[in-house]
Amino acid sequence: MGTKLIYLALVHYPVLNRHGEMITSAITNLDIHDIARLARTYDVSAYFVVTPVADQQDLARSLIDHWLNGVGGEINPDRREAMGLTRIAGDIDEVCREITLETGSRPSIYVTTAGKRPGLVGWTNLRRKIEDQRPGSVLLLFGTASGLDYSVLANADGVLFPIEGNREYNHLSVRSAVAIALDRLLGDRDSEY
Amino acid sequence: MGTKLIYLALVHYPVLNRHGEMITSAITNLDIHDIARLARTYDVSAYFVVTPVADQQDLARSLIDHWLNGVGGEINPDRREAMGLTRIAGDIDEVCREITLETGSRPSIYVTTAGKRPGLVGWTNLRRKIEDQRPGSVLLLFGTASGLDYSVLANADGVLFPIEGNREYNHLSVRSAVAIALDRLLGDRDSEY
Repeated sequence: MGTKLIYLALVHYPVLNRHGEMITSAITNLDIHDIARLARTYDVSAYFVVTPVADQQDLARSLIDHWLNGVGGEINPDRREAMGLTRIAGDIDEVCREITLETGSRPSIYVTTAGKRPGLVGWTNLRRKIEDQRPGSVLLLFGTASGLDYSVLANADGVLFPIEGNREYNHLSVRSAVAIALDRLLGDRDSEY
Repeated sequence: MGTKLIYLALVHYPVLNRHGEMITSAITNLDIHDIARLARTYDVSAYFVVTPVADQQDLARSLIDHWLNGVGGEINPDRREAMGLTRIAGDIDEVCREITLETGSRPSIYVTTAGKRPGLVGWTNLRRKIEDQRPGSVLLLFGTASGLDYSVLANADGVLFPIEGNREYNHLSVRSAVAIALDRLLGDRDSEY
């Protein structure tokens, strides 16, 4: 099998608000925690919190530091272990450059969206690619607020089918979307399952 | 197919703290929101927030009311729709009584836990039961803090395999666990998937 190189990024810019306008969203404490724990559980290589705003980067840095070097990690070593996977980046290009430096090649970028469009990639399709290690590494992008800007979708290697896109209601939190996406792509499907 | 009657409950008592002692945990705003949205997405019949503490019940009630009848729901009708599934109960027995009144029979109770033990139920096994509508209704219990007390596990009709129980790290938030559980049991597995 070898190591599957999966990277995650939670994008705060460029994303859309509920009116479809491009915005920069604010960092959320619980997004960092929940997604770091998911990343650690599913053996993701790194989890990037992406924001161009310096103050927001500082906020994320001090939060992570509390768990890596402060009292948080002493009280809760499991949380420290998860936080150790979390990094900060200014934009998606910076994430790609870091991964390219680490792995020797540019990652294949896959994104999720709540809307249907032509040419969507199926979950089992990407799962099999990952199992076969066909892409050298995979970067999964998730958008905060009302989702990733169209420019991010246009530049991705693939856009995954919306989670439960055939149902009537389709308004999951980004935390829930990351949980379901990692389980669909990397979750245990062996005998016990 | 007919309607699958699936109910969810988020239990704040009896649960364990990290030292294995029985406690009552506090209600969390985001648990209510994230899980209500998940419940609505996956067409769950109702989502019960279970706590015996009257103050905590009042807090949950005012939060739900803000979205059902206050400005929250005017600004965000999708959130109102999700909150409409959320109910409050004093204990698990009260949840069972309400479901029994609604459906005409007692629900089959399934629980999740992070620890392995003999006689665990596989996810596909329960998924098939639900698809065949073999249990009249299913109540899924999730524990806050460090998980459900042993007495709840002992009284359940089945304990599901731990989510990603074969991996090294197994510390998901309850929000993530609910997301993954609903997707494993009720998620789209058709052609697009």
